[in-house]
Amino acid sequence: MMKTTAVIMAGGRGERFWPMSRMHYPKQFLSLTGGGKTMIQLTVERLSPMVEMEDIYIVTNQDYVELVKEQLPGIPHSNILAEPAARNTAPCIALAAAVISRKYEEALMLVLPSDHLIKYTEMFLDVLGRAGETAEKGNNLVTIGITPTYPETGYGYIQFAASKEQGVYRVDRFVEKPDLETAKEYLSSGQYLWNSGMFVWKLSTILENFRLLLPEIYAGIRPIADACGTDMFEETLRRHFLSFPSESVDYGIMERAENIYTIPGNFGWDDVGSWLALERVNRTNEYGNIALGDIVTIDTKDTIIRGGKRLIAAVGVEDLVVVDTEDAVLICAKDSTPKIKKVIENLKICNRNELI
Amino acid sequence: MMKTTAVIMAGGRGERFWPMSRMHYPKQFLSLTGGGKTMIQLTVERLSPMVEMEDIYIVTNQDYVELVKEQLPGIPHSNILAEPAARNTAPCIALAAAVISRKYEEALMLVLPSDHLIKYTEMFLDVLGRAGETAEKGNNLVTIGITPTYPETGYGYIQFAASKEQGVYRVDRFVEKPDLETAKEYLSSGQYLWNSGMFVWKLSTILENFRLLLPEIYAGIRPIADACGTDMFEETLRRHFLSFPSESVDYGIMERAENIYTIPGNFGWDDVGSWLALERVNRTNEYGNIALGDIVTIDTKDTIIRGGKRLIAAVGVEDLVVVDTEDAVLICAKDSTPKIKKVIENLKICNRNELI
Repeated sequence: MMKTTAVIMAGGRGERFWPMSRMHYPKQFLSLTGGGKTMIQLTVERLSPMVEMEDIYIVTNQDYVELVKEQLPGIPHSNILAEPAARNTAPCIALAAAVISRKYEEALMLVLPSDHLIKYTEMFLDVLGRAGETAEKGNNLVTIGITPTYPETGYGYIQFAASKEQGVYRVDRFVEKPDLETAKEYLSSGQYLWNSGMFVWKLSTILENFRLLLPEIYAGIRPIADACGTDMFEETLRRHFLSFPSESVDYGIMERAENIYTIPGNFGWDDVGSWLALERVNRTNEYGNIALGDIVTIDTKDTIIRGGKRLIAAVGVEDLVVVDTEDAVLICAKDSTPKIKKVIENLKICNRNELI
Repeated sequence: MMKTTAVIMAGGRGERFWPMSRMHYPKQFLSLTGGGKTMIQLTVERLSPMVEMEDIYIVTNQDYVELVKEQLPGIPHSNILAEPAARNTAPCIALAAAVISRKYEEALMLVLPSDHLIKYTEMFLDVLGRAGETAEKGNNLVTIGITPTYPETGYGYIQFAASKEQGVYRVDRFVEKPDLETAKEYLSSGQYLWNSGMFVWKLSTILENFRLLLPEIYAGIRPIADACGTDMFEETLRRHFLSFPSESVDYGIMERAENIYTIPGNFGWDDVGSWLALERVNRTNEYGNIALGDIVTIDTKDTIIRGGKRLIAAVGVEDLVVVDTEDAVLICAKDSTPKIKKVIENLKICNRNELI
């Protein structure tokens, strides 16, 4: 296989894991599920049989550079790329491609989120390997699809075409988050996969697609690449990056390019999109509870408790999410987790930035 | 009126306010309702127009003597009586009577719990004044009854006889905690009062009743009184007190004595028997919530939150009790507050005495 590089996108500022996640400490730098390693550490570790540490690039924002250095001491500092502003995934990927192109004329490029969980690493690496083969064979853009297990309405879907080749499919179309009825149809048809936001392509393929489909961004990354390793890098990056449109790689490239393939994965993927994910990625006890930390439960069921340093006692409750941190405690009904952001809005209004 | 003394019973080790109350810091020493003063401080303050500080006696146990000194610096240290063991209210009252009898040959004695709330102090003092008059007039034992406002099944009741005199009634009988049907009958009959555990009598009357009805205790308190102010006091107290039977003044004296009167009170009394009392003694907000501390509520109703130093955010919940302290957080369904003691049992089994 061709030299393989990886780009890990770690600029997210999610609010859905408040009070554990904060503006200065988002989800990818936390161990939400209670294990010792953070999500970004697990993401890098998972790749170690396939990608050298010096070929792993982390794209994040200025605020998190120190966190990345601290949590991933094996990654060369020059591989940590700080976006001057959030511009969605297309400029992020273009920046990484520009930097990598200074080191390698051609290489495979794996693009991965930093804040998803994957249960079965070997199966995951196998899928990445097959995606790499597909990407190498031609100028193909490959997206990893997840075989859906229930009619989720919170994800985008990928419709794929029948294929003679087992396990590699041409993408017919990308579809937006469906309603429940449509999601059920997608599930039963067997023709749809969840869009996981993981991509595999050759450096030359993605750069050519930027040139064709997002020429404004393509034009900007050439001077950025040229300034790589010079005193002018930061200023050049800043000047060009801030002028980029905010665009996702899904809309900007994948939905408009030729030669889009998908490889379905069944490797225990979870995007850990809310506290409710803790039930999916951990084993519940006999009462349906998840109890991470120092917890006493009495007559309590189907409740998720993520403790901190204190004891948490739950008595006679059900279907709650309880999260304890040094300076804030959340008690939230399971069906109200989307409203956690209203707490943050409230804190913003009250200028309580230390809690956000 | 005769010289008036007061005995405040402060030996309770209630578990119902865990995690705020602890073995070494029970309810009477807390400000559960969020105000600045603790319950025992309020109890003493309330009496100040009626009883001199040097005539107020606190009966507690050895573990709480320092807390009493700290919270009630105006009470002479010699008025703080430490029971060598918990023996219910009869020995407690006998001990106080013995000590007071060294100072006054005759006096009125008010006996009050240290952990009840009273909203209308003037009305309370008026009732105590009338109770004092009734106690002075003859060898009467007077108990303060509370006019019931709903069919509570957690209190004992006092049935009183019709009287020509307004506001003072002979007690027909004391009855135990009724079931709901019976409580409803009591309420509608207008012949019953709640037994508040507050008593007024002359020193000579209660001593005479001990002599007649609890002679074993009466025999023991004479040497205790004689040792008062000597080096032998502690040893004498210990020797006799430990031999006393565990007996309540209700069973041991009130239910068996002659000349028992009751004065009905309407002074906003609450025994603060569980966290649910916070709803009765505080004003709820428009959503029925009690929020004491640093609280954000979103779509939350009928919930009691007693915060500590941290922010507490409640989202989409109802009918909960949430209590935050330095080292423990409680989340309890309102209808499950009696099960809080199971948390403590669990902690005892696990030898986690620091949390009890």
